[in-house]
Amino acid sequence: MRVGIIGASGYTGAELLRILYVHPEVEVAYVTAHTYAGKMVADLYPHLHGYAEMQFRAFDADEALAAADLHFVALPHGESMQLVPQLLAGGSKVLDLSADYRLTDAEIYKQWYGLEHTSPQLMDKAVYGLPEINGELIAGADLVAVPGCYPTAAILALAPLARAGTPGTAGAVVDAKSGVSGAGRKLSLAAHFSQADGSVRPYSVGAHRHTPEMEHVLSSLAGKEVPVVFTPHLIPMSRGILTTCYVKTGTEVSGVEIEDIYGDFYAQSPFVVLLGSGSFPETKAVCGSNYCHIGWHLDGERGMLTVASAIDNLVKGASGQAVQCMNIMQGWDEALGLEALGIFP
Amino acid sequence: MRVGIIGASGYTGAELLRILYVHPEVEVAYVTAHTYAGKMVADLYPHLHGYAEMQFRAFDADEALAAADLHFVALPHGESMQLVPQLLAGGSKVLDLSADYRLTDAEIYKQWYGLEHTSPQLMDKAVYGLPEINGELIAGADLVAVPGCYPTAAILALAPLARAGTPGTAGAVVDAKSGVSGAGRKLSLAAHFSQADGSVRPYSVGAHRHTPEMEHVLSSLAGKEVPVVFTPHLIPMSRGILTTCYVKTGTEVSGVEIEDIYGDFYAQSPFVVLLGSGSFPETKAVCGSNYCHIGWHLDGERGMLTVASAIDNLVKGASGQAVQCMNIMQGWDEALGLEALGIFP
Amino acid sequence: MRVGIIGASGYTGAELLRILYVHPEVEVAYVTAHTYAGKMVADLYPHLHGYAEMQFRAFDADEALAAADLHFVALPHGESMQLVPQLLAGGSKVLDLSADYRLTDAEIYKQWYGLEHTSPQLMDKAVYGLPEINGELIAGADLVAVPGCYPTAAILALAPLARAGTPGTAGAVVDAKSGVSGAGRKLSLAAHFSQADGSVRPYSVGAHRHTPEMEHVLSSLAGKEVPVVFTPHLIPMSRGILTTCYVKTGTEVSGVEIEDIYGDFYAQSPFVVLLGSGSFPETKAVCGSNYCHIGWHLDGERGMLTVASAIDNLVKGASGQAVQCMNIMQGWDEALGLEALGIFP
Amino acid sequence: MRVGIIGASGYTGAELLRILYVHPEVEVAYVTAHTYAGKMVADLYPHLHGYAEMQFRAFDADEALAAADLHFVALPHGESMQLVPQLLAGGSKVLDLSADYRLTDAEIYKQWYGLEHTSPQLMDKAVYGLPEINGELIAGADLVAVPGCYPTAAILALAPLARAGTPGTAGAVVDAKSGVSGAGRKLSLAAHFSQADGSVRPYSVGAHRHTPEMEHVLSSLAGKEVPVVFTPHLIPMSRGILTTCYVKTGTEVSGVEIEDIYGDFYAQSPFVVLLGSGSFPETKAVCGSNYCHIGWHLDGERGMLTVASAIDNLVKGASGQAVQCMNIMQGWDEALGLEALGIFP
Repeated sequence: MRVGIIGASGYTGAELLRILYVHPEVEVAYVTAHTYAGKMVADLYPHLHGYAEMQFRAFDADEALAAADLHFVALPHGESMQLVPQLLAGGSKVLDLSADYRLTDAEIYKQWYGLEHTSPQLMDKAVYGLPEINGELIAGADLVAVPGCYPTAAILALAPLARAGTPGTAGAVVDAKSGVSGAGRKLSLAAHFSQADGSVRPYSVGAHRHTPEMEHVLSSLAGKEVPVVFTPHLIPMSRGILTTCYVKTGTEVSGVEIEDIYGDFYAQSPFVVLLGSGSFPETKAVCGSNYCHIGWHLDGERGMLTVASAIDNLVKGASGQAVQCMNIMQGWDEALGLEALGIFP
Repeated sequence: MRVGIIGASGYTGAELLRILYVHPEVEVAYVTAHTYAGKMVADLYPHLHGYAEMQFRAFDADEALAAADLHFVALPHGESMQLVPQLLAGGSKVLDLSADYRLTDAEIYKQWYGLEHTSPQLMDKAVYGLPEINGELIAGADLVAVPGCYPTAAILALAPLARAGTPGTAGAVVDAKSGVSGAGRKLSLAAHFSQADGSVRPYSVGAHRHTPEMEHVLSSLAGKEVPVVFTPHLIPMSRGILTTCYVKTGTEVSGVEIEDIYGDFYAQSPFVVLLGSGSFPETKAVCGSNYCHIGWHLDGERGMLTVASAIDNLVKGASGQAVQCMNIMQGWDEALGLEALGIFP
Repeated sequence: MRVGIIGASGYTGAELLRILYVHPEVEVAYVTAHTYAGKMVADLYPHLHGYAEMQFRAFDADEALAAADLHFVALPHGESMQLVPQLLAGGSKVLDLSADYRLTDAEIYKQWYGLEHTSPQLMDKAVYGLPEINGELIAGADLVAVPGCYPTAAILALAPLARAGTPGTAGAVVDAKSGVSGAGRKLSLAAHFSQADGSVRPYSVGAHRHTPEMEHVLSSLAGKEVPVVFTPHLIPMSRGILTTCYVKTGTEVSGVEIEDIYGDFYAQSPFVVLLGSGSFPETKAVCGSNYCHIGWHLDGERGMLTVASAIDNLVKGASGQAVQCMNIMQGWDEALGLEALGIFP
Repeated sequence: MRVGIIGASGYTGAELLRILYVHPEVEVAYVTAHTYAGKMVADLYPHLHGYAEMQFRAFDADEALAAADLHFVALPHGESMQLVPQLLAGGSKVLDLSADYRLTDAEIYKQWYGLEHTSPQLMDKAVYGLPEINGELIAGADLVAVPGCYPTAAILALAPLARAGTPGTAGAVVDAKSGVSGAGRKLSLAAHFSQADGSVRPYSVGAHRHTPEMEHVLSSLAGKEVPVVFTPHLIPMSRGILTTCYVKTGTEVSGVEIEDIYGDFYAQSPFVVLLGSGSFPETKAVCGSNYCHIGWHLDGERGMLTVASAIDNLVKGASGQAVQCMNIMQGWDEALGLEALGIFP
């Protein structure tokens, strides 16, 4: 199958190229980049030397539709929604990695992203692309909204509890630690090496745009409001997200129940690895891979469950997850082309 | 004044040597190291070339007492209590950087450290060396138990709230991120470069020995039990601790009250820098310095206060704090020799 | 084909497991580890969760020969030569990643490694496993000595010049920069995070054991003595080697000739990517991959050619190269299972 | 004495503020920044909280001259020369950290920096501010051109040999490894965390502007042309430069002679620490300090001397060196305010 990547010069676009290079069923037939139109892919990204003849093009809907049957859109929010309707209308399937179709309510979108949504009618049609909770819907979707990196890690850690009804009105604290590639390729002081190296700091406290996404999905699973206090931190590493989640359990659940809740929930999920009680994940064990590692500890005395999850923000948190969704949409093995283990050390 | 450093070959010992090198009132007259007795200080630590003639010695109580009037003890827990009584009996003042005299209850000590305390009678006599809460007691002390690095960061973040009565029975979540030097100079797989680099992970979840120290001090300040759920994380950087603390406030307090609580509490503390509401600390801004930066955010909607503090674990979290206590014990300016700003970038 | 990995608990052993996990023709049937015999692979290395049922075993020659037809030996030098003769005698093909069969002269081996070689008769029989210069010999070999990481990078940078006769009696300066994983999983102060992080330093200056390997291979290619002044440096990163090589050219060669020399030499080498004149490699572009990037600059005024090469020390510098050799020995496509591009960023 | 810092918002400006904070004879009375005029210093640089009341101002020559008697100019090359003549004419002493007055020939300046020099008459008057070779001239200077970071490290490594006549027409290879802060605070892809982290690469090969500065100074010392082949590399760390220098010695010198050459040359230099033969520096041992560590190895067999030096690029490579020069100009102890040892680990 021929696929296109719209916005291929950013890190998630480049990661799609890397992943698809070894995918047995897919050929990348069309890649675009606004600023770098005309430039060779391998000149911008030497690690993509395998695409020696490939050039970034300026986006053109007709060209895109002629070149490929499915498109990954790896543009910033606000830009995606300018193109996605055209691609869908032209008969292409679309996996959008931006935030434009992750929420279902245009008002909430406007409140957090500061933009009027230009295709609100598609917000309901889009399927939230987290295969571990939405596999069947993804299989039949034309438009998949690939989740944000933080929500992927946090929801995978908390979804079993939410569905089981554990995080009640007290909600959850999500303390997340992210590598700097989450900030993308765009230059900023926060992502300047000399500022970020050797330092850790919280940012966007109480204001990060991934908060409504987490609350929306977890509340849907729980069937009631699940408030999330979310604090992201920048960690001096390139890749990886660790979320440490704190859920007030009171005396409601036992260790065995927790084990069952997670075991049952992920019984069919090839990319979730349960480390179990007392074992905790490290981001490096999933570096470059599509896996998510989860471990937990129940502090019975203080009535608190601590759950931690680790993913690679650019793979399971973005491009790998998009490919996983594509596999499901195409009826292929969910893990096709994504089996590679993490790069360690 | 001549001082001694017992256990000077570890990182906190070396850091004492670094700090005292520019202290105007102190001369380091005696340094010991078990394994490295006979070795030149500058051979083990090239950055300490300023001590070109200094040699590590094997500890001898008589020599120690003859050489110096005040001793820093930078030994592992369990080893400190073998020496401290002798030094005190010989008339020396002692600043102990181990955990041996931080708790007041020998039973709790045994429970967390697995050792019978050999000088329980000194546990009550020792003053907990956190100048921001115990300044007057430190001034009159002979034996100061210098706090652990995590408790220093967490208590400085939470003490104003504890004294004001805010973290009630709900207690606090302390999610701490530490540089690897906190693990000391002792080799371990966790501190092996290839394992720690490019990775973040929680460790000792629900079992870290600094938990009772935090709970003890915060409960004392609050006048009631303050349970602390503490999760330390290893961050790929050498120095620095960031604690992100979550306190359920309900609708009890306003933003102005929080501001006043912190402002009043630290009005006389030269080493605490309040960044205020909406500003958050980064560890690198205090690297190599004795300062603690604190910022917070009150999420009124979700009834949660997020407070973050940053220190250098080897300075304010260990050796700098010890020197600060020494200054107070000697009646000198609290900040003497400790004024240097953080190394950034 | 069933293969065995002898000494699978070190970093090169773990890397073989990672690489072979996606190799279409190979099943890992036998893994041994001395210290960790009986331990589950995934407990030691969480990133290898795909080998959920696999256990490290204690080495037993009969078991090894019964289980697999080809063995990778990832033991320290001196230990390899204790096993390799048995494996060969039993009919297994062997790829040895240690230094034991890289040199051809038992005296030079003894001089640099301080050990009497116990199977000197195999030193001549072994083929030096650098496919870019020895492809045909590897195809027919039973015993392949996989090159060291530094020699791989340095020889790939210099081999075209050596064969063309350029580095004459003046020889070459090889200034190499390596990630810390090159030191292996064994704990040491040099590889302790707090010592290595944020620092760069030379080590083993004038005494590194990879020196004779470089001189031997380059001299063979040149047909005359090529002295190499080799200085390795430790870089605060996990993976990657960059060698910067300085070759006195005088006025002997032009830029076009250099271009031709490299282009001709590597015309058939799928893993060598020539960046050309004025473009220089970065280690991260080959991270996790089997590729080698090479670039150069000819300073005509000062008569000096600067050539730089980048590899991943654990892949092209060890385990990936071993798999590449295996592919050749088996008559498979040289690149089978090794096509994945570098992980960037 | 009241001093000014022109261009204080960059890293070398901030570093001057950090260093001067503990300097006993100096008060910073005036700081300027173009982009940040009006902004509080501590808001831009939280580590400079000690300057709580200080604001960046827009440069005004009259204000500058009224406020301070000596000015550090920490502007980019090309901008310095716009101001320096005014400051000098107004009676201020000037320490310029840019490249504008480091060379003596306006033609060579134009060739490497692409600019017409606007005050060539000052190029001869300016003293090159490397105290270890120019102490007496600095003492009498009004205008000091503080050396570049790479030339400082390379010249300190090679100056004794140059004066002794060792690096002859063959010259020297200088392979330098620099932390990323050397690129300054200005955003660039090369200094973007995700690009630089976990990677090492050469840059500006054969074209770095510090080359003529090294050749100029070393040739002056040698009394003959000393060609330098200089290759800088970017290392994933914030601070520090290591230069590894290769000098063809033939059979001219013995180990003892080398030892004497260095010992004699630096007998009066408080900031140069000779580690001697066989001991090599690490950048972290001088982090945050004004010291330079030097070690070497003589390979008699291959006729090559390898010398390595380590400095902190922002201290001895820039701001600390400027303060050292100021001390000399004022007749103070050369080391005043600069005694602090390196931050390790």
